[in-house]
Amino acid sequence: MVGSVAIGICNGGKLLEELPEEFDPKVVIADNNRKEIVLGRNVHTSCLAVTEPDADDEVTGDREADMASVLARYRKSLMERTNHHLGYPYNLDFDYGALAQLQHFSINNLGDPFIESNYGVHSRQFEVGVLDWFARLWELEKNEYWGYITNCGTEGNLHGILVGREVFPDGILYASRESHYSVFKAARMYRMECVKVDTLVSGEIDCEDFRTKLVLNKDKPAILNVNIGTTVKGAVDDLDLVIKTLEETGFAHDRFYIHCDGALFGLMMPFVKRAPKVTFKKPIGSVSVSGHKFVGCPMPCGIQITRLEHINALSRNVEYLASRDATIMGSRNGHAPIFLWYTLNRKGYRGFQKEVQKCLRNAHYLKDRLKAEGIGAMLNELSSTVVFERPQDEEFVRRWQLACQGNIAHVVVMPNITIEKLDDFMDELIEKRPTWFKDGKSQSPCIAADVGKESCACSLHKQG
Amino acid sequence: MVGSVAIGICNGGKLLEELPEEFDPKVVIADNNRKEIVLGRNVHTSCLAVTEPDADDEVTGDREADMASVLARYRKSLMERTNHHLGYPYNLDFDYGALAQLQHFSINNLGDPFIESNYGVHSRQFEVGVLDWFARLWELEKNEYWGYITNCGTEGNLHGILVGREVFPDGILYASRESHYSVFKAARMYRMECVKVDTLVSGEIDCEDFRTKLVLNKDKPAILNVNIGTTVKGAVDDLDLVIKTLEETGFAHDRFYIHCDGALFGLMMPFVKRAPKVTFKKPIGSVSVSGHKFVGCPMPCGIQITRLEHINALSRNVEYLASRDATIMGSRNGHAPIFLWYTLNRKGYRGFQKEVQKCLRNAHYLKDRLKAEGIGAMLNELSSTVVFERPQDEEFVRRWQLACQGNIAHVVVMPNITIEKLDDFMDELIEKRPTWFKDGKSQSPCIAADVGKESCACSLHKQG
Repeated sequence: MVGSVAIGICNGGKLLEELPEEFDPKVVIADNNRKEIVLGRNVHTSCLAVTEPDADDEVTGDREADMASVLARYRKSLMERTNHHLGYPYNLDFDYGALAQLQHFSINNLGDPFIESNYGVHSRQFEVGVLDWFARLWELEKNEYWGYITNCGTEGNLHGILVGREVFPDGILYASRESHYSVFKAARMYRMECVKVDTLVSGEIDCEDFRTKLVLNKDKPAILNVNIGTTVKGAVDDLDLVIKTLEETGFAHDRFYIHCDGALFGLMMPFVKRAPKVTFKKPIGSVSVSGHKFVGCPMPCGIQITRLEHINALSRNVEYLASRDATIMGSRNGHAPIFLWYTLNRKGYRGFQKEVQKCLRNAHYLKDRLKAEGIGAMLNELSSTVVFERPQDEEFVRRWQLACQGNIAHVVVMPNITIEKLDDFMDELIEKRPTWFKDGKSQSPCIAADVGKESCACSLHKQG
Repeated sequence: MVGSVAIGICNGGKLLEELPEEFDPKVVIADNNRKEIVLGRNVHTSCLAVTEPDADDEVTGDREADMASVLARYRKSLMERTNHHLGYPYNLDFDYGALAQLQHFSINNLGDPFIESNYGVHSRQFEVGVLDWFARLWELEKNEYWGYITNCGTEGNLHGILVGREVFPDGILYASRESHYSVFKAARMYRMECVKVDTLVSGEIDCEDFRTKLVLNKDKPAILNVNIGTTVKGAVDDLDLVIKTLEETGFAHDRFYIHCDGALFGLMMPFVKRAPKVTFKKPIGSVSVSGHKFVGCPMPCGIQITRLEHINALSRNVEYLASRDATIMGSRNGHAPIFLWYTLNRKGYRGFQKEVQKCLRNAHYLKDRLKAEGIGAMLNELSSTVVFERPQDEEFVRRWQLACQGNIAHVVVMPNITIEKLDDFMDELIEKRPTWFKDGKSQSPCIAADVGKESCACSLHKQG
């Protein structure tokens, strides 16, 4: 298809109908999401082609009118798609109208946030303000941290793991099976040995399995990815237990590096009572978080904070990153820091706290409603990600933009997901669900393997 | 500091004055740009701090007013900095007013441009339209290419070199000394053997040296970075000679991979008569180009095009990039493709051709004026990058945002650099230059080692 935004020119339809004649069907691979995915396939039937302007276009204004009409339809579809969105951890509720005036400038924070560049059209003063805020949140002193605003959560993970590898060139990367795919991408890119660790049914790393695997590799330093909210289940790895396991198996603090992937929840957890703390007072090396998730931003971005000593170590390496660029990307989007600065200033700690509480409350509401309807559902204690039975109708999944994996789907309750929206969703689910089963009789499939017996509503596990 | 945007809160001044007390001066390293660069140093004195809103801010509106005032001053400084910019290859002349309406949406092209994602707020239909345009420009059929819109030129290089490494896991990366620093960053990130090749005085790769180095490493495949416009001198490597050298030293087409780094000039050269052609009809593997350079865009972005067969090969690897994401970044800025689509549609081939011609004409004008004043200067035949003696005044360099390296500086003549602006620059240069020399008498330093004797204006090399 090329996505589900349905504007005039797009046909937004089924994959198979659009296969071009020349296409090599051998390249089709099966996906455990029950949908066939074709890798690298070129789908052009629904794209908005670029066409050469006619010589008289400037005179007639036809082209301008055509483009305006395409954009108006696109905007309409974006509004509809934004309103029916539940599955991804993006806060779609923001108003950056005050910043529209800056779109006229090519703002680029070339290279290091703390090193002057001759290119004057930048936003480093905003960037450093935002970085300071996050360093304070995670308790690292101004003169002890280094960081930058990244292009997305993946760049944060790529950077954190690279720093780990440079600190321990022969280190082994450990990450739980439910870690974000960018962690395993990094291992392959960087040619690192990588050991996958089992998870508990909650999605947390299984520290018993971690211990076993550490013992098998005691001769090499450990580089660890710790999930502060996994992608699918919103599970928070137990950082304290991870550190304890390392210590107990004989890994001193100078023999391991911990990167915390806090994509979504890294910014929510500081505001949750009873949540374990992510802090640089513990022996961690870096934390990353996405900016377009809980904060909300027109484009993906993220924050990466690490210890200054690690970056100084890197910079002393021969020619490392051209001696003055310790980022992954050289040129960096200068608008993203301003969006973040704007929201942080407007909401502050207090504002985020209120929103986090609302999200957790609404997530509980959704889980309770699902359970009341006899639908298997799970909500991790510290999370706003509600996992439940995958709807048996791809149209419904696509309409509500649910993220799915195997037998389960999830809704991530973000600040823009209101009770009213959840009610609309539930009403539609309740109405449509019987039609997905033979004889119109709903029957929950078993999802105990994914979420545990107590969250499953199948005939075997259903509780009295 | 933190850059040169001087708004109220910034003091935009000297580096040394701002060193915090706690700073470890041992971390200062010397830079060949004659300026001291402090790696990873945290400069916070001039940043715009995020502050917690007061409880009554919403009532009084004070905070909103403060922020509006900060933004207004920032905007003013951006206008000034945009007007005095000559050194970086960014086209700062664009009007995306028609797209301001889209800033309210969180547009994210998650993963592969050609694979449907459940997240509906995307712009793949624009992205594929833009990719098709570039594939056509570089003569690769729709069903034979794969590509995506990147975050910047660096990401294109990171991707192209990664594809090369996956095609030839034991390949050696060859790149000329004047290649962009991201090429060497990639080699280190990917743990690849990397051989630096000498350059001619023009900045082009020295194919004699390349031949020698290839012969020394005949047992391993070659992965080559070819510069379509080097960063400093705008030199275009001779692609045909590179291929001939590979063939003559016994490297068959299945033993090398060529990535073309066309950051700026990849989009200008197709419109220059007599320029050698970058085309997939030659045995190249990938081409990347920046979107924020010649096209112009509010934030960095780029285009990466490669052969579909390479991506399919990657995707068959075990778990490569989670089996369905062949990009470097997972989440991708969905606004960038729309900016590019908009400009391509408005300008078309013809529009770009006109702009390229204007840039080359203006670059010649600048070079001629510099030479007429007795200032050493060089302009490569296919380029709009004018290299000349580095001004002896860092204030002047900063004011005009010139990019410098060693004894030379450059101006990249982009579509927004008019004759009037060049005249302003020359007038100021002529006025100030005598004051940089003892006794107020200008005397050109020798830059023959950088640009060749014929472009040097020192007393030894000056021509009649």
